[in-house]
Amino acid sequence: MSVIPGPLLYEGKAKRVFASDREDVVLVEFKNDATAFNALKREQLEDKGRLNCQISARLFELLEREGIPTHYLGLLDETWMAVQRVEVIPLEVVLRNVATGSLCKQTPIPAGTSLEPALLDVYYKDDSLGDPLLTEARLELLQLVTRERHREMETLARRVNAALIPFFQGLELQLVDFKLELGCNGQGELLVADEISPDTCRLWDLRTQDPQARILDKDRFRQDLGGVIEAYGEVCKRVQGACPNPRNYR
Amino acid sequence: MSVIPGPLLYEGKAKRVFASDREDVVLVEFKNDATAFNALKREQLEDKGRLNCQISARLFELLEREGIPTHYLGLLDETWMAVQRVEVIPLEVVLRNVATGSLCKQTPIPAGTSLEPALLDVYYKDDSLGDPLLTEARLELLQLVTRERHREMETLARRVNAALIPFFQGLELQLVDFKLELGCNGQGELLVADEISPDTCRLWDLRTQDPQARILDKDRFRQDLGGVIEAYGEVCKRVQGACPNPRNYR
Repeated sequence: MSVIPGPLLYEGKAKRVFASDREDVVLVEFKNDATAFNALKREQLEDKGRLNCQISARLFELLEREGIPTHYLGLLDETWMAVQRVEVIPLEVVLRNVATGSLCKQTPIPAGTSLEPALLDVYYKDDSLGDPLLTEARLELLQLVTRERHREMETLARRVNAALIPFFQGLELQLVDFKLELGCNGQGELLVADEISPDTCRLWDLRTQDPQARILDKDRFRQDLGGVIEAYGEVCKRVQGACPNPRNYR
Repeated sequence: MSVIPGPLLYEGKAKRVFASDREDVVLVEFKNDATAFNALKREQLEDKGRLNCQISARLFELLEREGIPTHYLGLLDETWMAVQRVEVIPLEVVLRNVATGSLCKQTPIPAGTSLEPALLDVYYKDDSLGDPLLTEARLELLQLVTRERHREMETLARRVNAALIPFFQGLELQLVDFKLELGCNGQGELLVADEISPDTCRLWDLRTQDPQARILDKDRFRQDLGGVIEAYGEVCKRVQGACPNPRNYR
């Protein structure tokens, strides 16, 4: 690796973040840990870290080409990337193009319903509270972000959706829904942070109609469908086919 | 009773609704059943029906004096009231003046935080889904009410809050939060429906600072604090003192 990682700054469920030799750059290592249901379900999945790192890098580069600011700087290695240091906003923004998952457990909206415009849900990122859904009024009460920043987050998330849908469509993948985390860099710019991978996106294979076989994302792990890594590998293969040469850092 | 109830139209957890001799009027019997946690906890509490009926009647009359339309027509008996037949909107509107209960389990807002303006939460009334919280976007997606009707519901709920707070204050009771159900009558008018009682309002006795003794509402039942009926009786006594002569139907 061209850069030697400094001290560990933070360890999450799926990634470790290390200091670099630059104040404004941190190094992210993608782990093989798979977790679901607020980490009640946990497993090591060989190669997951590499696949998510490689997929994320290319999706961040795609967003960049669309003019959407992200924290991504470049790959260091198969499982490591360099990113801008950001203060992550403790909110998860979920955009849903098709109703499935928790939405269908919490509303009478039938699974499979096409959502246009995409439904945008904001969750408070807090494992101890179970990442609760926030209404706009509750979000305002929490005073985590100003109303302007909140609007900016929504706009950015919808731009990400608008960029990813046709990209995945071209790979015969349907972007069902996805979660974004956003952060602010030292200049106060809002950036797409975290990762964009089958851990954070629901992706359905348009090459099959089979309701289980088409699942190429973390739902395979959540629902014990098996073939998790094979599914992530298939997504990676298609994404790599479209973006063969990701940028290296330095 | 001056009116003979017709067929049973609907039985809920705390009330039975019967037809009357008029198409646009139904008769509500308040039951002694106490339920909590989506009816997982259940008990018979002698006299609860009467107390909630008597309290509700007076609170509906208070709202009426404030120009807030309600379904209430008049009392028939100690545990029965006549109300306008409405189509109940399957939403629960909750107004919170002080943070407590589920809000504090779902957000980091500390219990006891004063909320000004009151926080308005809308829940989808569906026991099988556990009465889930709805964001505005989810509410729009469900298409249960038009956006205009939704605004009208919010305005009405805030007017109810503005009327109830000083009324209870005058009785040395703090209105912590409450749930409203709203319905439309045959003329399409939006009315406050259901009941307004210690089953649907959190009320704290301002005559004591003791955090358990002050609770005069269903939290005594939820939290197994005992003295449920004594608490409801105390609320009824104070409400009756302020409004001694409720209207009889016919």
